[in-house]
Amino acid sequence: MPFQIQAELHYQVLQRSTVLLNVHALTTANQTLSHESFQITPGVIWEELPIGTAGENRYIRLDTGDAQQLDITYSVTAETSPVMISHEALHDLPVSQIPRSALTFLFPSRYCQSDRLGKLAWKEFGGILHPYDQAVAIADWIFNNIDYLSGSTDAGTSAFDTVTQRAGVCRDFAHLGIALCRALSIPARYFTGYACNMQPPDFHACFEACIGNRWIIFDPTRLASLNGLVRIATGRDAADASVATIFGQIELTGIAVSCTSPDFQPLGPDDLAGQAIVLDS
Amino acid sequence: MPFQIQAELHYQVLQRSTVLLNVHALTTANQTLSHESFQITPGVIWEELPIGTAGENRYIRLDTGDAQQLDITYSVTAETSPVMISHEALHDLPVSQIPRSALTFLFPSRYCQSDRLGKLAWKEFGGILHPYDQAVAIADWIFNNIDYLSGSTDAGTSAFDTVTQRAGVCRDFAHLGIALCRALSIPARYFTGYACNMQPPDFHACFEACIGNRWIIFDPTRLASLNGLVRIATGRDAADASVATIFGQIELTGIAVSCTSPDFQPLGPDDLAGQAIVLDS
Amino acid sequence: MPFQIQAELHYQVLQRSTVLLNVHALTTANQTLSHESFQITPGVIWEELPIGTAGENRYIRLDTGDAQQLDITYSVTAETSPVMISHEALHDLPVSQIPRSALTFLFPSRYCQSDRLGKLAWKEFGGILHPYDQAVAIADWIFNNIDYLSGSTDAGTSAFDTVTQRAGVCRDFAHLGIALCRALSIPARYFTGYACNMQPPDFHACFEACIGNRWIIFDPTRLASLNGLVRIATGRDAADASVATIFGQIELTGIAVSCTSPDFQPLGPDDLAGQAIVLDS
Amino acid sequence: MPFQIQAELHYQVLQRSTVLLNVHALTTANQTLSHESFQITPGVIWEELPIGTAGENRYIRLDTGDAQQLDITYSVTAETSPVMISHEALHDLPVSQIPRSALTFLFPSRYCQSDRLGKLAWKEFGGILHPYDQAVAIADWIFNNIDYLSGSTDAGTSAFDTVTQRAGVCRDFAHLGIALCRALSIPARYFTGYACNMQPPDFHACFEACIGNRWIIFDPTRLASLNGLVRIATGRDAADASVATIFGQIELTGIAVSCTSPDFQPLGPDDLAGQAIVLDS
Repeated sequence: MPFQIQAELHYQVLQRSTVLLNVHALTTANQTLSHESFQITPGVIWEELPIGTAGENRYIRLDTGDAQQLDITYSVTAETSPVMISHEALHDLPVSQIPRSALTFLFPSRYCQSDRLGKLAWKEFGGILHPYDQAVAIADWIFNNIDYLSGSTDAGTSAFDTVTQRAGVCRDFAHLGIALCRALSIPARYFTGYACNMQPPDFHACFEACIGNRWIIFDPTRLASLNGLVRIATGRDAADASVATIFGQIELTGIAVSCTSPDFQPLGPDDLAGQAIVLDS
Repeated sequence: MPFQIQAELHYQVLQRSTVLLNVHALTTANQTLSHESFQITPGVIWEELPIGTAGENRYIRLDTGDAQQLDITYSVTAETSPVMISHEALHDLPVSQIPRSALTFLFPSRYCQSDRLGKLAWKEFGGILHPYDQAVAIADWIFNNIDYLSGSTDAGTSAFDTVTQRAGVCRDFAHLGIALCRALSIPARYFTGYACNMQPPDFHACFEACIGNRWIIFDPTRLASLNGLVRIATGRDAADASVATIFGQIELTGIAVSCTSPDFQPLGPDDLAGQAIVLDS
Repeated sequence: MPFQIQAELHYQVLQRSTVLLNVHALTTANQTLSHESFQITPGVIWEELPIGTAGENRYIRLDTGDAQQLDITYSVTAETSPVMISHEALHDLPVSQIPRSALTFLFPSRYCQSDRLGKLAWKEFGGILHPYDQAVAIADWIFNNIDYLSGSTDAGTSAFDTVTQRAGVCRDFAHLGIALCRALSIPARYFTGYACNMQPPDFHACFEACIGNRWIIFDPTRLASLNGLVRIATGRDAADASVATIFGQIELTGIAVSCTSPDFQPLGPDDLAGQAIVLDS
Repeated sequence: MPFQIQAELHYQVLQRSTVLLNVHALTTANQTLSHESFQITPGVIWEELPIGTAGENRYIRLDTGDAQQLDITYSVTAETSPVMISHEALHDLPVSQIPRSALTFLFPSRYCQSDRLGKLAWKEFGGILHPYDQAVAIADWIFNNIDYLSGSTDAGTSAFDTVTQRAGVCRDFAHLGIALCRALSIPARYFTGYACNMQPPDFHACFEACIGNRWIIFDPTRLASLNGLVRIATGRDAADASVATIFGQIELTGIAVSCTSPDFQPLGPDDLAGQAIVLDS
């Protein structure tokens, strides 16, 4: 199913700056792109960096030069083929069999201090036997216990804060999911992307947990349809995958995101019964 | 110069556990190994994992199985050829020219919350013009302002704590150095390794700052000679490069580390005047 | 019922120090003392300070002078008459009717950051109608969710940490109870004292919540019998009521506490059904 | 010198609330009031509470009842007689001679975690011999190292944050001054009040340090003239002395503060040379 995506970002440049921009969709085994377009204020020099090895991003690095204003428009058509997998097919692999590439995602990171959430995680979810059911329970717990509240957190908020403060946005929900999974020895990573028909439209963040050697996607905000996600980046947490990392001083003055598909059918509870969703196999 | 290295670790196994062990020296362009030996309690199953892509480690993953006791002996002869570079040869590259592989090391991580140390870093070191001189000043500041005090910190202590609590061990000194460099847009990473003739002998941690596309090593503890270091691992911080990451329950009961070289001549202040040290070019 | 209390503290003096000692039982409307004795290393100068106005303590202030060793023995016989009050008799007073003297105990304090626990408190306990039932639920929640684990916390640990780290000692349990009550606009304060027949014997900490203008005692550790408590001090939190606040450098080398009563009958669940305990009316 | 003071506060009431309001000037030995007026939206019930024992405030407690809007106007004429004391007259009292009433202000509090700033305080100021000179150095250090930046902090920010984040408002400056003093065993407390001719006009916060049994006032922001201060409240920190503590849900929609005196002569550097200012003897 093709998704029509467009993102616009407008900044005022207060001081010449370098920016790492992270809005390009990735090409993966299950996600193909076409009609990609990237437009930027004339005169601004930019380059697309090669995809990284830890996490994956298509960073645009730009230097504002003398521009006073930075206007960015990205558009693309993305075709995805998420895979549904029966719960029964997800094996419960011990840490001794977790693949090397997933081990990094067991370690605590800036916003996901899994090392400090161990007792909480074991008390709440330790009695659940299978890691898939644990991850489901974690996503449900977050949905039920954390308020989605714009403006309640800032760029410094981490899972350790959120677990007590009980409010946040998609980024905070994802961080808490990741931290709780890792605390249970389930590798977990940060997903950012576009979400079809999400209201209000915005960049979105979710988390993926590695269970039985498959990366299962979870959205503890329940704002997005899991079959309507288009990946921008994968990382340990938002430190790896911010929309924009700014070196200098520029100020966001406007943002508009859309992700639509004329024939999109969100998966409903019936479709998802007993099924996990893998975005990239 | 060949370094004779030996590390012994003894654990009591309280519960069957999986352990990621991080004691093997790396083979790099400037570090070659010979006579490597790894011995472990008979019956314990272990494997050496391929070197990772984010950071570099030669993890040993082991499963204690039914063993009650875990005894590990690692020994190796390592030959290193650190490079001395004149300060003048280190260019001051803007963020727009930092190599892709170093960008990851600009981001905040679990123990190095560079995003929260920005004002402090700019106030203390922002007036210094060249990033090399900034990194030198950071290492000096840490040495002069933080007490080296065994037992004053624990596995949860981060740079944000240390900058105020003003005490720590080599790990904390390295984390603070990394966080302050990143806050100034200097990529910085965690180094763990063996240190020739260090007193008392132990695993050591330092930091490397990427300046002019070279990774310069700094030891803010001043306990090690920079030409006597043998690399075990590189990472974002200690989350990537702990000596042992334990999944289960085992308890350290003994540790012994030695790193010696009969003819070792530590670099003195005269040798280092105007010179930076690069372990791996 | 008379309780025989004895406390011994032994310190090594590393450097001449001033100490605020907080081991004397209070005289209150419901607690009378006899046979009080306080002995200290000869030559050490000390004074008993007048009881404070915020919180209540009988501080001993001592100056070690030239003493190398500090040996303190306190003993007293305390008679208490805790009052049982039927739940029904505890009115649900709005904040607009809370007595002036209790208002201080609504504010956040060093170890009880009630300002950051609001959402958590309301989510977990906001559905409970009466403040007494809320306080009971808080004490139960702490008992059920926090592990009592000696050595798991230190003097810097606060309620904000404990709610996530899920382990602590009586001090941490009390702090969390206080913070959660205050977050629900229930005044709450710190109690330290002796606890009859508690195993292992030690100084104890609990919390008191002001409900319907009465200070109800709660012990979320469930280690002490509520009718076997002898008050040493009342405060906002442990910052006000440490056993010893040290200015200088002395090191605890030994401690022994006992609180016994030959005929003591701990209140059982039947006695407590529907009854709240007030130590001081 | 008489100061004409007026404060207006406007709130929208989102939900019936109780408010502790803290805008009334205190009557003290050195501060007398006249022409006091307090006006509030008709129908709102309020009372003035007796001055507390820990800290001092003239709280107004009000219940919004059915009011949709809350409009408050307070005005008063305050006459103060601050006292200048020569530095030489301030004795360096050891902790063993600090008066009982000041001891409370040695303990850490919600926003002043002096227990965690000990090493920093001793490293920066421990070499200074006299506590008055230490307090002066602390106020200077804060002025020189912390940026005054509206909006950079929030109600949860504490001295532990500010010492690293290096930005804040008068409240944060005061908290850091208090925490550093207490860490050096100098009792220190929070002052809120009106400040004559301060630009921009607002409520102000400073700190007082108890030296030689006198409470010396310090303003690390240097925004106010020390002889132009009118005291509203004294407390451990802002937890005791907020302008408004809200139980319920009301939203500030407007604020206006003025404090003027036709003949006010701010003390200049020459007046202050060698002189400390005591607001209340």
